[in-house]
Amino acid sequence: MTFHKSLCLITKNSLLQRIIKENIQISKRWYLPRRALMYVPGDDTRKLNKAFKIDVDCIVMDFEDGVAANRKEVARNTIRKLLENGKPVKPRNYDWAIRINSVPSGLCKDDLEVILTADSVPDSILLPKVDTVSDIQYFTDAVNLYMKHDKQINLIMYIETAMAMINLPELCNSTINLSKSSKFRLSTLIFGSDDFCANIGITRTNESTEILYARQKLVLVAKAYGLQAIDMVYIMYKDFEGLKKQSAEGARMGYTGKQVIHPAQVPIVQDAFMPNQKQIEWATGVIKAFEEHQKSGKGAFNYDGVMIDMPTMKQAQNIINLVKSV
Amino acid sequence: MTFHKSLCLITKNSLLQRIIKENIQISKRWYLPRRALMYVPGDDTRKLNKAFKIDVDCIVMDFEDGVAANRKEVARNTIRKLLENGKPVKPRNYDWAIRINSVPSGLCKDDLEVILTADSVPDSILLPKVDTVSDIQYFTDAVNLYMKHDKQINLIMYIETAMAMINLPELCNSTINLSKSSKFRLSTLIFGSDDFCANIGITRTNESTEILYARQKLVLVAKAYGLQAIDMVYIMYKDFEGLKKQSAEGARMGYTGKQVIHPAQVPIVQDAFMPNQKQIEWATGVIKAFEEHQKSGKGAFNYDGVMIDMPTMKQAQNIINLVKSV
Amino acid sequence: MTFHKSLCLITKNSLLQRIIKENIQISKRWYLPRRALMYVPGDDTRKLNKAFKIDVDCIVMDFEDGVAANRKEVARNTIRKLLENGKPVKPRNYDWAIRINSVPSGLCKDDLEVILTADSVPDSILLPKVDTVSDIQYFTDAVNLYMKHDKQINLIMYIETAMAMINLPELCNSTINLSKSSKFRLSTLIFGSDDFCANIGITRTNESTEILYARQKLVLVAKAYGLQAIDMVYIMYKDFEGLKKQSAEGARMGYTGKQVIHPAQVPIVQDAFMPNQKQIEWATGVIKAFEEHQKSGKGAFNYDGVMIDMPTMKQAQNIINLVKSV
Repeated sequence: MTFHKSLCLITKNSLLQRIIKENIQISKRWYLPRRALMYVPGDDTRKLNKAFKIDVDCIVMDFEDGVAANRKEVARNTIRKLLENGKPVKPRNYDWAIRINSVPSGLCKDDLEVILTADSVPDSILLPKVDTVSDIQYFTDAVNLYMKHDKQINLIMYIETAMAMINLPELCNSTINLSKSSKFRLSTLIFGSDDFCANIGITRTNESTEILYARQKLVLVAKAYGLQAIDMVYIMYKDFEGLKKQSAEGARMGYTGKQVIHPAQVPIVQDAFMPNQKQIEWATGVIKAFEEHQKSGKGAFNYDGVMIDMPTMKQAQNIINLVKSV
Repeated sequence: MTFHKSLCLITKNSLLQRIIKENIQISKRWYLPRRALMYVPGDDTRKLNKAFKIDVDCIVMDFEDGVAANRKEVARNTIRKLLENGKPVKPRNYDWAIRINSVPSGLCKDDLEVILTADSVPDSILLPKVDTVSDIQYFTDAVNLYMKHDKQINLIMYIETAMAMINLPELCNSTINLSKSSKFRLSTLIFGSDDFCANIGITRTNESTEILYARQKLVLVAKAYGLQAIDMVYIMYKDFEGLKKQSAEGARMGYTGKQVIHPAQVPIVQDAFMPNQKQIEWATGVIKAFEEHQKSGKGAFNYDGVMIDMPTMKQAQNIINLVKSV
Repeated sequence: MTFHKSLCLITKNSLLQRIIKENIQISKRWYLPRRALMYVPGDDTRKLNKAFKIDVDCIVMDFEDGVAANRKEVARNTIRKLLENGKPVKPRNYDWAIRINSVPSGLCKDDLEVILTADSVPDSILLPKVDTVSDIQYFTDAVNLYMKHDKQINLIMYIETAMAMINLPELCNSTINLSKSSKFRLSTLIFGSDDFCANIGITRTNESTEILYARQKLVLVAKAYGLQAIDMVYIMYKDFEGLKKQSAEGARMGYTGKQVIHPAQVPIVQDAFMPNQKQIEWATGVIKAFEEHQKSGKGAFNYDGVMIDMPTMKQAQNIINLVKSV
């Protein structure tokens, strides 16, 4: 016998009801699963071609760390041609993404010009090394200058410095505000653990206990702002057992996906970030309960002893969207 | 041989002396141990009667998750009658508490009317799902509207969303400020781990490593503001070994108590949060040293190599209060 | 085959170039390794004499916890005499430091007068129990009042309360701003774990999991502001295996040194915080790459797949400075 029970609490909060309703519609329009986010060097036509044959949620054509300094122009030309041809068709939908160079690199603006003036634009742009609000202001100005398409691009921000980790809530808040008058929408945070460790002077171990604070702060802030959180790279790309373990660990912490540096990592990672049966049942129940309450004109409610607020509703919706889309 | 020594440092800081003195008096007046905080559904007369026969520090008569939506009125009527009869007498003092429904549920204000206009009021009110300062402003307004008794009620806040976890210091600060012109006093933070995990998308394990950041941030902020910190529920209420382990873990982190969902959990939890002999000796020593220094007109001081400031003094005082009261 | 490559990205950001250049010059002038930071009671001439024969990075002559209240004047007189004689010469350079009493103790100002009006001043002053910006304002005023030497003293701040841990970024920021119009420079944060645990009510274990949040937040904030981070004391001074393990753990988290309470702890700790061959090679590579890029008039750059920003450059420079200086 326990004193704790499941219940459905019906309330009269119609504002919350409206917000959740709109939010679900936005979710349906925008939601792209990113269980595995795979990097492909933007200057390597062979690897690019190969990437589009892999069943992966998110393909990141890279302008940044995966491309040598003297190959940046080749990468721009290669990707520009791809953009002119439109998004490659695959058996199921996926996130067609580009990682540009960071604002402090001095290459960011020209990267954006190449991308945003093409005949088609990617679904998402990944901006590395975001440190302060001024980086996002710079990015916004460049998007406003070049973007002619009537489309909203997903912005995926890398958090990879100690200062960004300190300023993270403010950074999310400011970015969401800046996006309101621009053609992007903040969708995801990535934990850039390699740069972060170099920045702090951390020596990584396989257990990763030494970065636990940062790894858990990132996912907490992401979820507070309704964002996806993408976990660190598992560098030893031949160690599949280790990859599996670290992926499961990230999933348990609330991460929704993981960066991948080799095609062989993709199925393991996508498996680990697939919701399990229990989670799917929970999400289905939450959404069903919500729809029933909605009919009766009521808003906030409890499900299985937990009050369903917007972020929780989003978790449920994302689980169902993911299951439907893969 | 060590270079580190115990000592008692005598200083002339008389302001601190006065603050500590007043603080101890406040502590004596207000301090209620809450090693185990046990939930009882507010609509279940049988369980309520049974609860008052249990030797437990804090009995929480529940209006929220433990009561189904169509039983809310029954709970209100049941508890109202209890309040009219006055606090049930038990062999030793205890915290007579009520968990109301959250502000976003829309039920909070009416819950408070039922409670605060009764002939006697509870010692403590537990407010779930506190997310922003506006929730506390709403609560303050309702208390100011209904509370006629010349008594200060302890406010116990649930922290159970990512956003609340981000805003936690500001939330404590604002609540303390709002309480100054009202008839409540912020005394405790509770880590609402189930809602928190749903909010973040965390999958709990028995080790709870995946929530370590949040669990330790909560206790740190609580102690910075001189508040008690109550640890999460151990859901598997038949696993006493697991409960014992998790209780000891919480106590080591600085938590002063734990939520309990079944009477059988109470003695194990109250044992785990009982200060050990070493802690009692330390606290006794701190207080004795303080009283001696006080006579000689001196304020801040060190004890056993550690400078005794207000929060530390409070820790010592709370340990002694707890030992005396149980 | 991995999609991730090493590269050197050449950019045109000349402002960053200038900042990094100046920063390196400052580093060279100021950098003092503090792998082991050893306390010696300021009133114990025998131990002080012994301390200067030990090969240790940083000797802290203590006015605070290591000196009994009725011995404070003896300590002041003893250290004052030492200061009049000038910095004792040792086979290699070291940090000649003094820990004064905290601002709330009421002894801080007089301690500073004794120290700063002597014929020579120490390299560093350690200020315990920093809690709020007003403590630093008080310290700044006292330094401005007494300091006549044309020298900048390193300020080493103790973070040892819950409130300081909450306010840590603001505390660093304000201290750096206050130092601009004074003769000190914030160089280091120390995790004062004993006071911190008493302040929170934490019971320490050997694994120290219960303080992981605080221990990792401190090093993250330190590095964001370009500061050294000094790890907690290992109290069981006869357990060398435990000391070795905890030192390695701190080093992995990004700490650059550790507090030491017994001479026998020094070599173990200094070993643990010595950069390993891989780190030295990385740092050498970073600096070499930087110097080459500098010649070609370019600024920000990547090394080994990681973008080198100021904090990372500082890490590299500090590693090399440390290796050269010991």
